[in-house]
Amino acid sequence: MTRSINITVIGAGSATFSLGLVKDLCLTENLKGSHVTFMDIDAQRLRNITGLAERYSRELGADLRFTQTTDRQAALSGAEFIINTADVKGHHHARRVRELTESLGYYYYTPSALGHFYNFRLMLDIARDIERICPDAWLIQSGNPVFDGTTLMTRQTNAKIIGLCHGHYGYLEMANVLGLDPSRITWEAPGVNHAIWLTTFMHDGEDAYPILDKWIEEHGPTYWDTHVATRTHDIQMSRGVIDMYRMHGLMPIGDTPRLVGWWYHTDLATKKKWFGQPWGGPDTEIARPVHVSVLSERLAQMDAAIRDPAVKVTLVFGQTRTREQQVPIINALSNGVAGCFQVNMPNTGGVVAGIDHDVVVESQAWIDRGGVHPMRPARSLPASVMRDEVLPKVSEMERGLEAFLMGDRRLLLLDILAERKTTSYDQAKMLLEAVLAMPGHEEVAAHYR
Amino acid sequence: MTRSINITVIGAGSATFSLGLVKDLCLTENLKGSHVTFMDIDAQRLRNITGLAERYSRELGADLRFTQTTDRQAALSGAEFIINTADVKGHHHARRVRELTESLGYYYYTPSALGHFYNFRLMLDIARDIERICPDAWLIQSGNPVFDGTTLMTRQTNAKIIGLCHGHYGYLEMANVLGLDPSRITWEAPGVNHAIWLTTFMHDGEDAYPILDKWIEEHGPTYWDTHVATRTHDIQMSRGVIDMYRMHGLMPIGDTPRLVGWWYHTDLATKKKWFGQPWGGPDTEIARPVHVSVLSERLAQMDAAIRDPAVKVTLVFGQTRTREQQVPIINALSNGVAGCFQVNMPNTGGVVAGIDHDVVVESQAWIDRGGVHPMRPARSLPASVMRDEVLPKVSEMERGLEAFLMGDRRLLLLDILAERKTTSYDQAKMLLEAVLAMPGHEEVAAHYR
Repeated sequence: MTRSINITVIGAGSATFSLGLVKDLCLTENLKGSHVTFMDIDAQRLRNITGLAERYSRELGADLRFTQTTDRQAALSGAEFIINTADVKGHHHARRVRELTESLGYYYYTPSALGHFYNFRLMLDIARDIERICPDAWLIQSGNPVFDGTTLMTRQTNAKIIGLCHGHYGYLEMANVLGLDPSRITWEAPGVNHAIWLTTFMHDGEDAYPILDKWIEEHGPTYWDTHVATRTHDIQMSRGVIDMYRMHGLMPIGDTPRLVGWWYHTDLATKKKWFGQPWGGPDTEIARPVHVSVLSERLAQMDAAIRDPAVKVTLVFGQTRTREQQVPIINALSNGVAGCFQVNMPNTGGVVAGIDHDVVVESQAWIDRGGVHPMRPARSLPASVMRDEVLPKVSEMERGLEAFLMGDRRLLLLDILAERKTTSYDQAKMLLEAVLAMPGHEEVAAHYR
Repeated sequence: MTRSINITVIGAGSATFSLGLVKDLCLTENLKGSHVTFMDIDAQRLRNITGLAERYSRELGADLRFTQTTDRQAALSGAEFIINTADVKGHHHARRVRELTESLGYYYYTPSALGHFYNFRLMLDIARDIERICPDAWLIQSGNPVFDGTTLMTRQTNAKIIGLCHGHYGYLEMANVLGLDPSRITWEAPGVNHAIWLTTFMHDGEDAYPILDKWIEEHGPTYWDTHVATRTHDIQMSRGVIDMYRMHGLMPIGDTPRLVGWWYHTDLATKKKWFGQPWGGPDTEIARPVHVSVLSERLAQMDAAIRDPAVKVTLVFGQTRTREQQVPIINALSNGVAGCFQVNMPNTGGVVAGIDHDVVVESQAWIDRGGVHPMRPARSLPASVMRDEVLPKVSEMERGLEAFLMGDRRLLLLDILAERKTTSYDQAKMLLEAVLAMPGHEEVAAHYR
């Protein structure tokens, strides 16, 4: 079946994402004729991405229509799918917060409950607008915090919501290093977003963990001593992740190891030891600027293409689909091109055992025209993973949501005190007050009393 | 109704406890004729306490019979109530462990999962013996770890078990400082042992928290500046506990504040600031020797009485009942002198909301000849108390039980890493290996692989 649909992208100025979406739409035959509405508060970036998208579509002869608007409510009118990629404050603000925490003795730390304020507020506003303006639409939340935000929105509104992340592709990085063909792998990695663990890892229907064990024994030490990452996020097979595997008996996948075990993350030397050269993983003072500059370079490449109408954008940006799940999921829900996807969704029915039903979990779901059907994982998460990794993340999320909904400053303080990098009560109090006093944080300070 | 019953005390060499029990039995008319079996592995202490109990009973003309044995299984034969007060390793061993942890940079720390090994093993042995030898008997667990141990035993055996602690009497310390008549107070303090919070605090049927608030405002600062504790455990109205109250909106009771908020417990100066002069609460290097010497003095007083048959022991040790719950509970179960008690019992039916049904909770229960009837608290524990205080204690307990049942050394390491006082992975590993290598720990080292 083929049906043209109305897709709205909020935070469309995130050009890499938006262009990827357009590519996937252009390359998906049965979504032709679809109408994409780009919304952003930055009119200049909005014009740029719309122009680029139109050129890309035109060059391919794809039958897509584009609208741009800075009016969020107008963008929702008639929408069937809303993709929210917005990050209200962005990289530079995050860096300023980290500089402040560093001045108070913290290594590379952002108080997360506090930091989520702007995105929480925007997400709730969007979900409430959807309830009113386009109640049958699906919201595909594609910006962080996916876990906290989708739990917040699904609890507070009746909007139909799923959240997406890239982290689960970590299993592909494993396959790549192990020399396994991804098409012959069966996998499951349930949990909550940024805390997912590889409960099933099979190759040709046989447990593939022994292949990993053999690699660790025969090649691990050499790999850890000699591998030099070319992407800051390349840590899936690092010494630290394998140590986590040894501790819990399962591999943490994707973004998960960035948040496992405070002891792997205390300082740059420790991070380099566990997560490798040259950056010690993505969350260090030397890695983050590299990551941000990679993003800036991509933007610059787009800007160059935008300024030069003679450039063939299909040549510059390629004609292969991304591995993003947004467009295939839209196709599944709209046209019945059903499939199995890794999504974040309320744990209705308790498919991920041991997590409350009103918490959003990340796991596989079958998606078809009937909707999102959570699939119960074949194996439960082991007790130690639940107790030491997943449930503490749920608690942290709950603390942040309660703090936000109640506007309770004490809960922000508890959040900072729960952070292992905090060394004293006074330091935590000082940090809280300092972050609330940052220029531009007036609304946050007023919200949390 | 009056019925003489068979009571067995395991670890009866704990003379203060055993003598208190004898006093309570002598002063409980309808338990006359009862038969008390003292069991201990220390024959000398066993002879001493039995002699003292016999003299006490004789002086009062109480109709009690006593047997002593070092054979635990013999002690259980015919028992209707078994009170277990045993602590396998005792104070001096605990001090040696703390000296070792201190040498590795820890302030006043005992790795608890590891430290529970001997008591866990004894408790399980006793509960299994009870299943076989006296399956209808009640086991009243009166030694630590009450929470972990009673959960372990109730899961692994069918023995009828309740656990008792003194901590909840903290509400009496509050009443005392506030000048309130305890008989006019209605209270509830549910949770798990050593993590209980005063959800109900009424005076003459009116909420008494405003009385506390007024005291804090008018007298708190003076009290905190001038109060000098005469007992190491006198911290219920300390600056630290009131700070916990401000944070969570409820008073933590009894032993609870000893385990709340790592930031109150980082070093002696911090402890003194929060828990007062002269010792900074019971868990400091200067308080613990005082507490142990108080216990030693009591033992010495008993030894003196034992050596001098002319001494009237009823004069030396008084003729008033203790506030221990063991004998009243036995009287309730045996003779229907029913009452409301603060006990530790499986959370069957989920009376303490948010805790798994197979976890032992501490809360009030009505006890009569029909058994132990858990009473659902009038108010649930607030979200922040559950999330930040109670559930982490449950997780810690679960980790320790799994470590014990599986003999899994990795879980002991995770336990040490979860301790806030640990500053690095290497320190945790070193500590674990050092504690396992302590002379006398050969069985522990062999158990955890």
